[in-house]
Amino acid sequence: MNTYDLIMKKRNGEILSKEEIIYLVNGYTSGEIPDYQMSAFLMAVYFRGMNYEETTLLTMAMADSGDRLDLSGIKGVKVDKHSTGGVGDKTSLIVGPILASLGVPVAKMSGRGLGHTGGTIDKLEGIPGFQTSISEEQFISQVNNIGLSIVGQTANLAPADKKIYALRDVTATVDNVSLIASSIMSKKLAAGADAIVLDVKVGTGAFMKSVEQARLLAKTMVAIGTKAGRKTLAVITDMNEPLGNAVGNILEVKEAVECLRGQGEERLLKVSKILACYMLIAAGKAKDLEEAEKKVENAIKSGDALEKMKDFVNAQGGNPEYIEHLEKFERAKYSLAVSGRELMEHSDLCGELDEAYLASCDNQEIGMVSLILGGGRETKDSVIDLTVGIQLKKHLGDCIQKDDCVAILYGNDKQRLTNAKERFLNAYTLSANKIDKNPVVYEVITEKDL
Amino acid sequence: MNTYDLIMKKRNGEILSKEEIIYLVNGYTSGEIPDYQMSAFLMAVYFRGMNYEETTLLTMAMADSGDRLDLSGIKGVKVDKHSTGGVGDKTSLIVGPILASLGVPVAKMSGRGLGHTGGTIDKLEGIPGFQTSISEEQFISQVNNIGLSIVGQTANLAPADKKIYALRDVTATVDNVSLIASSIMSKKLAAGADAIVLDVKVGTGAFMKSVEQARLLAKTMVAIGTKAGRKTLAVITDMNEPLGNAVGNILEVKEAVECLRGQGEERLLKVSKILACYMLIAAGKAKDLEEAEKKVENAIKSGDALEKMKDFVNAQGGNPEYIEHLEKFERAKYSLAVSGRELMEHSDLCGELDEAYLASCDNQEIGMVSLILGGGRETKDSVIDLTVGIQLKKHLGDCIQKDDCVAILYGNDKQRLTNAKERFLNAYTLSANKIDKNPVVYEVITEKDL
Repeated sequence: MNTYDLIMKKRNGEILSKEEIIYLVNGYTSGEIPDYQMSAFLMAVYFRGMNYEETTLLTMAMADSGDRLDLSGIKGVKVDKHSTGGVGDKTSLIVGPILASLGVPVAKMSGRGLGHTGGTIDKLEGIPGFQTSISEEQFISQVNNIGLSIVGQTANLAPADKKIYALRDVTATVDNVSLIASSIMSKKLAAGADAIVLDVKVGTGAFMKSVEQARLLAKTMVAIGTKAGRKTLAVITDMNEPLGNAVGNILEVKEAVECLRGQGEERLLKVSKILACYMLIAAGKAKDLEEAEKKVENAIKSGDALEKMKDFVNAQGGNPEYIEHLEKFERAKYSLAVSGRELMEHSDLCGELDEAYLASCDNQEIGMVSLILGGGRETKDSVIDLTVGIQLKKHLGDCIQKDDCVAILYGNDKQRLTNAKERFLNAYTLSANKIDKNPVVYEVITEKDL
Repeated sequence: MNTYDLIMKKRNGEILSKEEIIYLVNGYTSGEIPDYQMSAFLMAVYFRGMNYEETTLLTMAMADSGDRLDLSGIKGVKVDKHSTGGVGDKTSLIVGPILASLGVPVAKMSGRGLGHTGGTIDKLEGIPGFQTSISEEQFISQVNNIGLSIVGQTANLAPADKKIYALRDVTATVDNVSLIASSIMSKKLAAGADAIVLDVKVGTGAFMKSVEQARLLAKTMVAIGTKAGRKTLAVITDMNEPLGNAVGNILEVKEAVECLRGQGEERLLKVSKILACYMLIAAGKAKDLEEAEKKVENAIKSGDALEKMKDFVNAQGGNPEYIEHLEKFERAKYSLAVSGRELMEHSDLCGELDEAYLASCDNQEIGMVSLILGGGRETKDSVIDLTVGIQLKKHLGDCIQKDDCVAILYGNDKQRLTNAKERFLNAYTLSANKIDKNPVVYEVITEKDL
């Protein structure tokens, strides 16, 4: 077997065998296959694609390239959740406590964010005292004790994916569904859960811009998970505007806690609940959606989920009083409001009107606003400002009056706030006519849909 | 401008600008653009192609990456000839003297062969004393004096092509018409001729297996040459069997001389004459094919072309007596005949017949026979045995009797001869029924055909 022949084979649209895929992944990871052959191969995959079988084999080979987390010391069906990423997505902080309070163990290794806001781990570090790096033994014993632990990735999970992703990132071979799916799923398989619920985002703030694309990615990942012997399902959810009101690390922790109190923003609550329901079903703790919904509603209403959040924060060294008293959290020094008048005057269409509807949002731009404020990482070494961010007061489809406050930007640098506001104003379009709201959840993809 | 965006642009099927193509070629040649980005770009070109304009820009950028030969010291219209390569192709040794004897200066820089037989330079070194590396001044003054010089490539012509070709060779991105055409034409443009006649080979011994493919390559190269301001035309000729009777370096020099005596094999003579005719037309020394044919016929018949060959050999230090007395050339130690009987017994179909027709030839395999005998280079550092080779006695469409000699293999190693013969027998198929001969020349592509 040699690399040249395998590049040619894929280039010609042929199907690669298990041995061939393993040869490529292992050869590249060990350095025997040079970057320039791998990048040519990846571009051939971009054009020719891979079928479910090949994609699964690629995923397994990458998952096998490093450590595999051993969660066998945890009792019960371990369910993992993964979001393909979006703006204002803090659902992990909401579904984790809900699931744990319902007896489903959640053992989550989470990454730091590279992009507009931090990852779950960065957000948790906004809670004073919270430790995100604890030993694997502590991690497992905490899940056995209180049902929930979320830690930073310490294990060497799927190093092949890390190396291949870095190459894709500089050779314009990122956006291929097989490569995206295998990258995500290789880490999920290595992370050891029995069941996986995927939140595939679609819209202007997501990697997948259309429901068709999202459906294809969802199906591919469900196919991989299923072929790899894990119960896997995917929920396609809206990312045409930020999820919830808050964008920014500490702001998002606070909003997650509000959701656990049953007071969160409607769309965020709806996505969190549906993810929790399907995780509950995947864990075998509810027979159908109806039963799952009742249990999830009750976990919130009873205060059990909020209580679990406090236990979780406490167990990892964080101060649970912050969960009780959100006003204790550190705040940014400055804030800058965006009024309906400013948004309308900024709009060519609606400058003369008394009121207008929020018609569309370039959600990636909202991510950029957060990044400008200091809430995200531009490079791996950037330091995140956990206090900054955006608090939305209005959402797509809402009617805006001139005197309405549309959003408040929080920052620690006045110039950055000014720049961020300009960018925020550019991100929205208005309409004189009423606009329908986007659905929150588009589709659920299970094994049956393949 | 950055490389990532250019890879993405081509990947998405967009057209690159002049500045973008120059950025890529210069960046890669200087080492600023890494191999892994260039190989991804090349694979994107493989799938998306390049239009004539882009291909010409790529060619020009590669031609500009190193030295350009200055032939302005040579009087008259300088015409270059290039063959895309095949088995037994010794036309350069025939058309050079013909053209020079008709007053068209031929200043040719030629490569060494990597493959089944040597290149023109290797073949010429079979003539005792012949010098293939002379100074540029000598080269130009010789062309001015006798009208013809053929030397090895000393100038640093199109180093970008050299580097890009080496990368294509290991990333399965060789067989794309734009990349093939630009690679050939970049060297031709840098080599400085005013007009270029291309011999595009088609068939089992050529890179292009179908006339359609050959036509596409021919058109692309004619488009490049024309856009670059050189009079360019292409002749598509047959390579479904070796051209002429001889395959092997010294054997081919001898056959070329026989052609100049007017005694050569029919198909080889026909291809050589048509190439000479179009070179004459391109040089403005004949107004049409009819006039050109008369002149070329006369150059051979009069003995002028043969005389020019001797002058040329003499001018470059070779012994012209060898041209007069071909029997002086060194010969291989052993020879092995292939009989009609052996070929027929080797054939499933024709073992029982008294006679059969040569139906098809895997001409690449004939190239391999030459390589096995020692006549070619497997790697850059291989030493060629100039004496070995194949002398064909029969051609496709010929009727073979059992006692006919079909070919004689020449070698200096008995085991290699035995292996070569086995491979030779496998290369042909026979037919009980009469077979039409392939055309010699399929098409001529000029600027008007674009």
